[in-house]
Amino acid sequence: MTDPIDSAVIEQQLRHRSVRRFLDVPVGEAQLERIVEAAQRASTSSNLQAWSVIAIRDPERKRRLSQAIGGRDYVERAPVFLVWVADLARNAELLRAHGAEPETLGLIENTLLGAVDVGIAAQNALLAAESLGLGGVFVGGIRNAPEAVSAELRLPRHAFAIAGMALGTPDPEEGTGIKPRLPLSGVLHAEVYDPERWREATGRYEQDYRDYFETQGVPDRSWARTVVSRLGSAAGLHGRHAMRASLRAQGFDSE
Amino acid sequence: MTDPIDSAVIEQQLRHRSVRRFLDVPVGEAQLERIVEAAQRASTSSNLQAWSVIAIRDPERKRRLSQAIGGRDYVERAPVFLVWVADLARNAELLRAHGAEPETLGLIENTLLGAVDVGIAAQNALLAAESLGLGGVFVGGIRNAPEAVSAELRLPRHAFAIAGMALGTPDPEEGTGIKPRLPLSGVLHAEVYDPERWREATGRYEQDYRDYFETQGVPDRSWARTVVSRLGSAAGLHGRHAMRASLRAQGFDSE
Repeated sequence: MTDPIDSAVIEQQLRHRSVRRFLDVPVGEAQLERIVEAAQRASTSSNLQAWSVIAIRDPERKRRLSQAIGGRDYVERAPVFLVWVADLARNAELLRAHGAEPETLGLIENTLLGAVDVGIAAQNALLAAESLGLGGVFVGGIRNAPEAVSAELRLPRHAFAIAGMALGTPDPEEGTGIKPRLPLSGVLHAEVYDPERWREATGRYEQDYRDYFETQGVPDRSWARTVVSRLGSAAGLHGRHAMRASLRAQGFDSE
Repeated sequence: MTDPIDSAVIEQQLRHRSVRRFLDVPVGEAQLERIVEAAQRASTSSNLQAWSVIAIRDPERKRRLSQAIGGRDYVERAPVFLVWVADLARNAELLRAHGAEPETLGLIENTLLGAVDVGIAAQNALLAAESLGLGGVFVGGIRNAPEAVSAELRLPRHAFAIAGMALGTPDPEEGTGIKPRLPLSGVLHAEVYDPERWREATGRYEQDYRDYFETQGVPDRSWARTVVSRLGSAAGLHGRHAMRASLRAQGFDSE
């Protein structure tokens, strides 16, 4: 018997695309709670559950958040905008209640732990939402203006907004293309890391990427140029170059 | 019509439990590739695809890794052990090829970006594996000994091991309990963050946690004590207190 490689879950995963245009239909509270329940069932480091999520429906608050991070119309137009927070504030309070000082929370290990916990939980949430007919997009831009975001959401010490997520019913008018990724050999290594694998894959991907955008009516796109504009200078970071101070202000000293 | 809250995806997510005991059955290459393909289809910040995964089957290498991180028998006994790597090395090479210096890679924003990308991709992979009848567990312990892990896996500059994942066919003899999580009100906030919500929830959870472990034959367990032993002192971090220097050595200066 050949091992299976197909499942309803994998079909859903392979259909993923980012959705930025939504119909004017609310996301019900029961669906939202189910989506967050799915997020909670995902793995979390040492069961610390080092994340929280804030569901924002108030149009004025969405507008202020969007403006603070440089303007994202899909944040304003999404029926619900989620902010995923690396959150060790609960743990800090437990530590103090038991006479321990939350000193280790200033270590970069715990900043990373919170970020990974958020990534794991938020991905379960997005996939759950997609399986219910909703769609959405991660909004890393929430990290463009940490002070304003922390103030708007009243984040306490030991809580830091890691990722936004616009969620709603997909507008069928939006394009439905699925962007190609690097060839498998560009990311999967056997036994040890081998850069030669991705050197070949990256070259092939440049062509796949260009071909895909041509089918979408966008000529002359280049992955390499995208990477350069995003990472080649501090300008591409839209304010995130100053994040360490913002993390420190929230108790994530990251030492 | 009531909005749906059930799907095959959500059923799979709610069934998740960490698996640490495996049957002596290999994970086929076709399944592994499918699992990584599912990981690739998940969201990735600005399409940077800032992660790689190394699949380790060599028993000697698994043994060495397990020993380096303090001994994990499930790392040794898993048919395949995956190491998920925050990887900006591809991006760094593209930057240099286009005359840009990879200076921004030393910013903590890009350390976090890699960690979140890993969390998102790895969770899609684990859920895909579970949907194929496999099981597994995240191994954050891979961060206990970054220098040894980087050397063993020959990680280049701008690559750092964020999470391990033991994967295989679950041994049905292993307990199948599903640990409770915090009540929903402990993690889900509306409009703004409200610590009063989790103060109440944390107290209830302490009892849920104790009750669950009693049904598993383990009396007198406490979430609060677990948190204190894990975060109350550097000893609970098993070497991770020194991680910032290790990150810097791999080019993740995290400034």
